[in-house]
Formats: sequence, C-alpha cells, structure tokens
Amino acid sequence: MTVHRFQPMSYHNTLGAHEPVLQIADGDTVVTTTVDAYGNDEHERPVASRGNPQTGPFYIDGAEPGDTLVMHLDRLSPNRQFGYSTASLADNVVDPPYVRELPARDTVKWQIDRQRNTATVVEPLTRLGAFQRPLAPMLGCFGVCPSGGQAISTSTAGTHGGNMDYRGFQSGVTVYFPVFVPGALLFVGDGHGVQGDGEISGNGIEISFDVQFTVSIRKARETGWPRGESIDYIFTVGNARPLDQALQHATTEMMRWLRGDYGLDAAGASILMSQCIEYEVGNVFDPAYTIVCKLAKRYLTD
Amino acid sequence: MTVHRFQPMSYHNTLGAHEPVLQIADGDTVVTTTVDAYGNDEHERPVASRGNPQTGPFYIDGAEPGDTLVMHLDRLSPNRQFGYSTASLADNVVDPPYVRELPARDTVKWQIDRQRNTATVVEPLTRLGAFQRPLAPMLGCFGVCPSGGQAISTSTAGTHGGNMDYRGFQSGVTVYFPVFVPGALLFVGDGHGVQGDGEISGNGIEISFDVQFTVSIRKARETGWPRGESIDYIFTVGNARPLDQALQHATTEMMRWLRGDYGLDAAGASILMSQCIEYEVGNVFDPAYTIVCKLAKRYLTD
Amino acid sequence: MTVHRFQPMSYHNTLGAHEPVLQIADGDTVVTTTVDAYGNDEHERPVASRGNPQTGPFYIDGAEPGDTLVMHLDRLSPNRQFGYSTASLADNVVDPPYVRELPARDTVKWQIDRQRNTATVVEPLTRLGAFQRPLAPMLGCFGVCPSGGQAISTSTAGTHGGNMDYRGFQSGVTVYFPVFVPGALLFVGDGHGVQGDGEISGNGIEISFDVQFTVSIRKARETGWPRGESIDYIFTVGNARPLDQALQHATTEMMRWLRGDYGLDAAGASILMSQCIEYEVGNVFDPAYTIVCKLAKRYLTD
Amino acid sequence: MTVHRFQPMSYHNTLGAHEPVLQIADGDTVVTTTVDAYGNDEHERPVASRGNPQTGPFYIDGAEPGDTLVMHLDRLSPNRQFGYSTASLADNVVDPPYVRELPARDTVKWQIDRQRNTATVVEPLTRLGAFQRPLAPMLGCFGVCPSGGQAISTSTAGTHGGNMDYRGFQSGVTVYFPVFVPGALLFVGDGHGVQGDGEISGNGIEISFDVQFTVSIRKARETGWPRGESIDYIFTVGNARPLDQALQHATTEMMRWLRGDYGLDAAGASILMSQCIEYEVGNVFDPAYTIVCKLAKRYLTD
Repeated sequence: MTVHRFQPMSYHNTLGAHEPVLQIADGDTVVTTTVDAYGNDEHERPVASRGNPQTGPFYIDGAEPGDTLVMHLDRLSPNRQFGYSTASLADNVVDPPYVRELPARDTVKWQIDRQRNTATVVEPLTRLGAFQRPLAPMLGCFGVCPSGGQAISTSTAGTHGGNMDYRGFQSGVTVYFPVFVPGALLFVGDGHGVQGDGEISGNGIEISFDVQFTVSIRKARETGWPRGESIDYIFTVGNARPLDQALQHATTEMMRWLRGDYGLDAAGASILMSQCIEYEVGNVFDPAYTIVCKLAKRYLTD
Repeated sequence: MTVHRFQPMSYHNTLGAHEPVLQIADGDTVVTTTVDAYGNDEHERPVASRGNPQTGPFYIDGAEPGDTLVMHLDRLSPNRQFGYSTASLADNVVDPPYVRELPARDTVKWQIDRQRNTATVVEPLTRLGAFQRPLAPMLGCFGVCPSGGQAISTSTAGTHGGNMDYRGFQSGVTVYFPVFVPGALLFVGDGHGVQGDGEISGNGIEISFDVQFTVSIRKARETGWPRGESIDYIFTVGNARPLDQALQHATTEMMRWLRGDYGLDAAGASILMSQCIEYEVGNVFDPAYTIVCKLAKRYLTD
Repeated sequence: MTVHRFQPMSYHNTLGAHEPVLQIADGDTVVTTTVDAYGNDEHERPVASRGNPQTGPFYIDGAEPGDTLVMHLDRLSPNRQFGYSTASLADNVVDPPYVRELPARDTVKWQIDRQRNTATVVEPLTRLGAFQRPLAPMLGCFGVCPSGGQAISTSTAGTHGGNMDYRGFQSGVTVYFPVFVPGALLFVGDGHGVQGDGEISGNGIEISFDVQFTVSIRKARETGWPRGESIDYIFTVGNARPLDQALQHATTEMMRWLRGDYGLDAAGASILMSQCIEYEVGNVFDPAYTIVCKLAKRYLTD
Repeated sequence: MTVHRFQPMSYHNTLGAHEPVLQIADGDTVVTTTVDAYGNDEHERPVASRGNPQTGPFYIDGAEPGDTLVMHLDRLSPNRQFGYSTASLADNVVDPPYVRELPARDTVKWQIDRQRNTATVVEPLTRLGAFQRPLAPMLGCFGVCPSGGQAISTSTAGTHGGNMDYRGFQSGVTVYFPVFVPGALLFVGDGHGVQGDGEISGNGIEISFDVQFTVSIRKARETGWPRGESIDYIFTVGNARPLDQALQHATTEMMRWLRGDYGLDAAGASILMSQCIEYEVGNVFDPAYTIVCKLAKRYLTD
C-alpha cells in the first residue's frame, strides 16, 4: 500500500506498449500530475506535444491479460489558475447547413478559483459576459495499453479506454479496465476543470491537474468495455461511431455485468434495465463517440 | 380558460389531418383519457388498434402555421391497476452477436399502486423477483399534425413530435410544438407508468392514463423541433437515426433558442452550451431515435 | 391487357390513400406523364407543388394486402428540352468542415437532346464548361400507398418505395412492391434525365417525363422491401438512415428472396452473397438514404 | 528501377513504425508473397498470427511526410490451390432480428484453378452445390505507417489505408497513400481470390498471394485519404463508421482532387460529381467501413 509521488518527465500521445515510468503493486497509490490537452504544464510551459499527452505508463505488478484493473480516482484537481476552451460548437454536432452559422473557433480563457470552486470566463467577453459555473474536475483521456500490439492515438477511445471525455470520471469514482498486456500499463491525462455532455466544442476547460489514484487487480475477471462505479451508480462505457453502436456496446456490457456479478438471468436483467437504465453522452467529438449506460445502485440492493 | 372534459370514442394510429374531436381556445384546459400502446382502456378492454393509438386531435382556435403551440402537461396519471412491458431488451440495442443471447419477448405484468406510487412486477418471476420501483408517469407519443399533408405513424417521431418516448415528458412540463396546419391538431397517447432511458425493451410500463393539459399559442414564433421546459431545465428534442443526427437536430435547435430568445450571440451560446449542456436519450427503439439537449435554467439567469 | 392513356390533372406530394385517378386491371399498361420535381410540366408551366409531385394513384384491380405488385418500366423519357440541377454538393455529403467550401446552390440548366441522347450544361459556365454526358433517364420517386393509414412525403422513402433516387430505375427494369391496401395505389413521378450515385447535389437533372409502365399482380407473395430485376441483375432496395441500416434492410431482403424463390438454404445463400453481391447507393440526400443490393443473374442459373 | 525479390520471414498485425524489411528506391519494384488472413502461407503452414498479417514494411527512400506514395499493383495472384471463406453472413449486415436466422459460421473451402481462372466450392455442399465463379484477385489489407506514432490493427482502416477490403484493389490499379513518416513504410497482405462488395461474411476467399508492386513518390503532394486509379476510373477511399461518414470522407477527397489536379472550380466539380459519381462499398464488416467514390475518366478528358 505504498504511496508513490511521481513527477513525469515525458508524455505519450498514444496508449501503447511504451516503457513504464514506474512499477507499482496491487493496492498502491500514485500521486502525480498531468499536463493539459495542448501539452502545457502547471506553469503553462509547453512540455509535451498537443493532443492529450499522457502521464505514464504505470506498470502494475501481477496484472495479466484476462484480469481487470481497478483504478480508484482518489483526487483530481486543476493545479493552475487558467484553463482554456473554444468559443464555437464543433462542426459535427450541428445540422450540416448550420455549420456556416458557427462562430470562429477562438480560444476562451477561464479563471479557475479552487477556493470558491468556480470557473469564470476571462475572455472573450461575448454577450454571455463573465460567465461563471462551478468546477467539476474530470479526466478526459486515460486508460490502459490496448490489445494486439496497437498504439492508439489519445484522440480516440476503445475497449482500452482512451479519450472518452465523460464528465462522470470525477474524484471518488472507481474505473475498471480490461488488462491486455502484463502490467496493464496505465496512462492518465487530459484533465478538464468542467465539461458539458458531449464535449461539443471539442474540449472542456483544458487544464493541468494534480492526480491521485489507487490501483488494484481483480484476477481472472474479464471486462469487455470500461466499467465504473460512483456512490450512486454502476456504469459501463461504449466507444464507437455512430452513437448507436457505442450504445450497443455499453448496453451489452451492462447486461453482461448484471448477469455475471449480480445473479440476474437474462429476463430479469432485461426487466430491470428496461425501466431503470440512464444513458449519458461522453463525447460526440472524437473519432469514437462515447455513451455511458448507468444503473442506480438502489435498484440492485432491493 | 374553459376546462373541457373529453371522453374519446375513437383513436388514431397516425398523426395527420384527421377530423378534430374538439375545438378549444387559447388558454383552455382539456381533461381526457388515453388508452395504452396496445389499444386497451382503463378497463383493459380493447378499444383501439395497437401501436400507440392517440386521443384527439384537438383543434386550437387561432393556431396558424408559423405559430408555436404551447402545451402544459398539467397531470399525467395511470388510471388502472396493471401495466405491461417486455422481458427482453430489443434486438437493436445490443451488439449484433448478443441478439442470440436475449431472452424471449414475454410480457411482464406490473401492479401499479397509485397510493404508494409504485410499480411492482407480478409476473414473470425471474431472478429479479417482485421488483418494485417508483412510478414516474410520462407520455410516450404525442404531438401535432405534421406538415405537407403527411399522416405519420405513431410508431415514429419527427419535427411534429410523435413517438419520442422521452421520460422527461412528465406532469409539470411545458412542451412547445411547431404549428403546421390551422388549429395545430394536437394528439395525446401512449402513457408509460415508468420508462428507462432509451425504451430499450421497446416499451415502458404501458398503461392507460388520465391526462390533463392546457394549451396556449405563441403567435408568429417558429420552432424547428419540439422544445420543452421543466422546473430546472429548458430542453430541445431531436428525432432521427442515427442518434448522431438526432443530436445534431437537438443541439442546433438549442443554439437557435439561445440566440433567438436569450439574447446570446453565437460565441456566447457556444461557450455556454459547451460546458453546461446535458443530453438525455429518449428512445433507441422506434424508427426515429430521440435525443434531448438540456440546459439548466440556473445558467440562464446569471 | 388494355393500354390506358392517362393525362394527369392533379398531383400528390404524399404517397397515401388518395382517390384513384384510374382503375386498371392486372396486365394493363399505362401511358402517362410526370412533372418535374419542382412541379413544372412539359411546357415548363407550374402545375403542381414542388417536392416530387406524383401522378396517380392508379388502382390495380385485384391487388390485396399480402400480394406483390409487379411494375414493368416500359419506357421513361424526358419530354421537354431543358432540365435543371444544382451547382453544389449537398451539405450532408461532405466532411462537416468542408461545408464552408461548398459553392452557392445555383441552378444548373441542361439542354436535353433526345436525338443524340445527351444532356449538356447551358449555364452556369464554370470551368467545367458546356459539359455533356449521355442521358440515362430514371424515376426518382415512385411507389405504392404505405401501410397503416400513413401518407408519406415524397421527400422520403420506405418499404412502400417513394423517393429512392436510384439510377437503376430505368426503362426495361421490373420493380416489385409490397401491397398494403386494396388496389395497391401506384404513384409515379420525379424523372431524372441523368443522376449520379447518391444524388449528392440533392437532385439529378430534373425534368418532366413521358412514362409507360405495365402492371401485374403476384397473389399472396409478400415482399418486405422493394425488389427489382434488370436484364443482368436481381436487386433489393433498403431505405433508412444511416446507410448501415439501409444496407441491412437490402441485404436481409436479398437473403429472404434467395431462400424463398431460388431454393437456397441459409448457408448456400450466404456463400453466394458473400462472394457475388454488389451494392449501389441510391440517394444520400433524402431523410431516408437508399442502398441497393444486387446479384448478377448469371450466378443464379448455374 | 531495381526489381527486388523479397521472401518475408516475419509478419505484422499492426501497421506502425516497425523495422523495415527492405529499403527501396523511387521507381523500384518488389516481388514478394503474402500469407492469408489466418497467417497461413502457400503451403498452408501457419507462419504468422491470424488477422491479416502483413508483409513489410518497405522503406521507400526519399518519401517524407507531406508526400504522396504511389503504389502500382503490378500483379496479384493466389499462389496455392485452396482458399477459405465463411458460410454465413456477418451478424452486423442483416436486420437485428434476422441474426437468429443466420446459419453457423462454418468454413467454406474453395478450390482455386489459376489456369481456368475459377474458384469452386469444395465444401460444405449446401443447396448452392459446387458453386463456381471467376477469380478476381485483390488485396484486402495494405497501406502505410499511420501518423502520430500509432500502430493500427490490421483489422481496421483509416487515412493510412489498412483493412479496406475493397474488391477494386486488383492488378493494374494504382494506389496513392499519404506519407506520414520518413520512408512511408509500406505493408501488404490479406489477398482475396474473390470478394463480393461489403465483405459481408467477414471475408473473401482468403488465400496466400504472389504480389508484385512498383512504387514512386510524388513530392510535396498531400493526400487526405487513399486514392486510386484504374483503366477507366479515378477513385477515392473513405474509411469510417457509419457508412455515411466514410462516404463524406471519400466525397470530400474526390472534390479536393478535382479542384486540385483537374482545374475545376467548386461549382464545376459539384456539377460533374452530382451527375457522374459512382459509389462502391468496400467492407461493412471491419471496425471502420469503407466507401469508394469513383469518377469515370472519360468525363475528365472531355
């Protein structure tokens, strides 16, 4: 149960079989930092290439293909004063003719106040003014080394996680990843101070983070797609285009989970899911879109 | 401001230019009933053809093409003891190979207790047992006469509303429809005692309803897609396949609304939406899928 | 085997249960005309509302729900000198950012030379100049009355046919439609002098037509989706969005055809289809996209 | 203009920055072999891991990011007597309920007769019998090293090429790939003796190949997506899901090509494409689907 403090010196723009930066044990905790999506650190210095550069990978002793890696997000916190987003919706989230009516993709600068827990627009000052909303820090892109020798860009997502941009990946949440290679090779990056559903401008409030997480291994427990657990929900994550397919992945994974771990038969799981499932949209910007299939735990303890 | 009590004698399986059953004025209230999706009334008598038969249409005096029809859902309530759903997920919401693992599409019978506000499985008794969850009554299919002389099946949805199967259409919510024909011709039907997101078994708990609603007209105010308002949110509804396109419709409609009625410029609306929008999935079962784009009102009053 | 010469006096912008204009018998031939997609006739006079106005419906004696209507396209021919298309690709067929680079949607005027069998650009004279290509006359929108009391816009397509915009619907081709209502109620319209795959500007060369067709009935033979037959191919037509779903419809319909009428088992049909199927894209512009699944007849006679 | 005879000793299941097996010059020709999709060589010996193992990569001297790699497919020929396919359509190409009616995914064995140019079913003997069709040898999976340090699975496709499974990649065709890394790093594999459009059983007739190709470099000529040229057509290839997006990629790339290399303005290119484009479906089985946008050269020389 060691706590490792790790200061990254280099970053990766793919999730793949890169040289581990740290070897940790089942149950260990890592305290580290991530740079923002553009590669800028807590001093706004460019230290990595743009596109969600990742801290890691972390090698978890004993993790083998066929296991599940459990990652508890202990603490996610912006670690500087300013974050950045974009002043236009993405072209692909509006009706095609409306693309012509979208504004310029100017940078929006936000002031982050960790004491008051707010993000406030500094510029540009549109008719929205100095808009302020509460912080809700989350990880946009994180995951494990994918299968089959692939090195997958941090711009997209798959069964290994990656750029899911789901605002539910907040402090206190537990995430379950399939393990495809020895050591699992865990990566973290792409903190957002805040993000709406869909990441519909192509980003959240992009900012560098202090990150603390704790890992454990579930031996010989296969996971098809990333799963998660918050105080009130269990959830599954599907990554694909169109959203219809992402939803199929997430829905199938939830049914497998309910049948495998909660003692339900197919009919029972169907009845429960039909009347109780909630879906959330992760991103609709990246090459693979993300849908989350959630089930309130209160329906599982009855 | 008359209150009309209307007892339907016939029902429609399309939304189209059918003979109005009642002519009402701007501001009037209608108290009526709807049969369930199978055409059975409050006594479980078959009185209409299956497929979301509709009560109506109601002709609203003064409604003209180019206006917006405002419909406040005053009260939606199941009016009998039993409702019905299906004991299997729909084939199209799981990964294609998993279709073979879905159970039989048996009927699930639910007991509705309006005093205790619960729905409880009566049969079949799967491993889920006599599962119980709170009621959350909603309208699955309702809307206005579509444009261009069309008569659109109650199995699907479009700009005119229709079979959206969105669980947010509950008592207390206001819905805005475009008006395509004189009198608007409003239809209501397909009550669900409860429904999960996506209507992923192909139905909610299908049951006959007592319905009360109040209408008004916004003259010369065009709406592209159905809009709505609850205590905490404004929202827009996109109906299409794939979900990606439904999302484009809903997102574009929200941006139009913010720019048209809330004094925002395109950049301001983009900044706001990017970090604050929430999406919900209406149905992923009908020919047109439904996505809802929501914005918390608290971000509009700042 | 009567030949009916029918001069239309009115047109329809939906396919639905409209009053028949002519009652004909199994085996009869109809010689008639269609106006162009904008509602202009052979003298370029506006005689109908824009949006693929249809000639008909024709009531075929003896056609009953569950039958198949066989329609042989005897002769399709532009009947005036000029046709019209659009000088820009549609917004939805290019990558979203590229929408900004599309040119204005100016009208393109084409001279039709039926003697030389050519269409030649008259204006605008872009760098393409007075571009000329051979005529290949086809019907864009035609079909039968849909099921369930629907009246479906001529802008879209379904199991009843409609706006499929498939360039394979040329003279000499036989089309098979499901019959949903007594008399089938057959409509024809929307002639194109030429059209590329996908109808990617939103139209072909839109022009009024002389049309001759001959009908027959196959009793108690169900068709799920429109089918067709040319000299060299049998084919099935799927109409839906996304294209993936249209392709599923067309592929499933072909497999049903091969198993039902050609004596193949599921494995044999799969082996044949896997190595021999050809797909064509009808339209990718209308609300429902169209995919055609073709099989060369030479593989069926072996 | 050297001709290199290269006998592969190892294979790759990703396209990525692997160690080059041979360094060749602009203008050189390579004569080599590929194993089948399962990793079996011309003696049906298992020599590589299943999933379209690739021969290569070949390093082309002088190829730099921003160039276009030109690859002429000189000769593609099966080099053994038997090939293999699957006796069922894939689950994802039929309507979801029809999945239950698909047959078992048995292996189909085909005898390849290079003298008579035929493929003939040896087993199983379904009602289709000893079905025979002409050979039409093509490469299913080939391409260059992708951008950004990615190693992309040979099961899928992208801007770098990969598993496109397009039956137009036959002898005599020229293919143009973007160059993302120095030397381009060209891979070839996955020969099919025959394949229908869509690769709808998940494979063609999978067989090992003799392959000969010749490369050249177009300096400082960017290509967005793979392009190709046959005797009669130029074509562009889009790889994505849904097909709608693949089609957008291919269509946009064609418009860029016509504007960049053929002297057309946007309106001229639109007029030409609208009435003359043909689409073909590569695969609808892999994670990314493939659409090809073709234009007959005869329309370019007018």
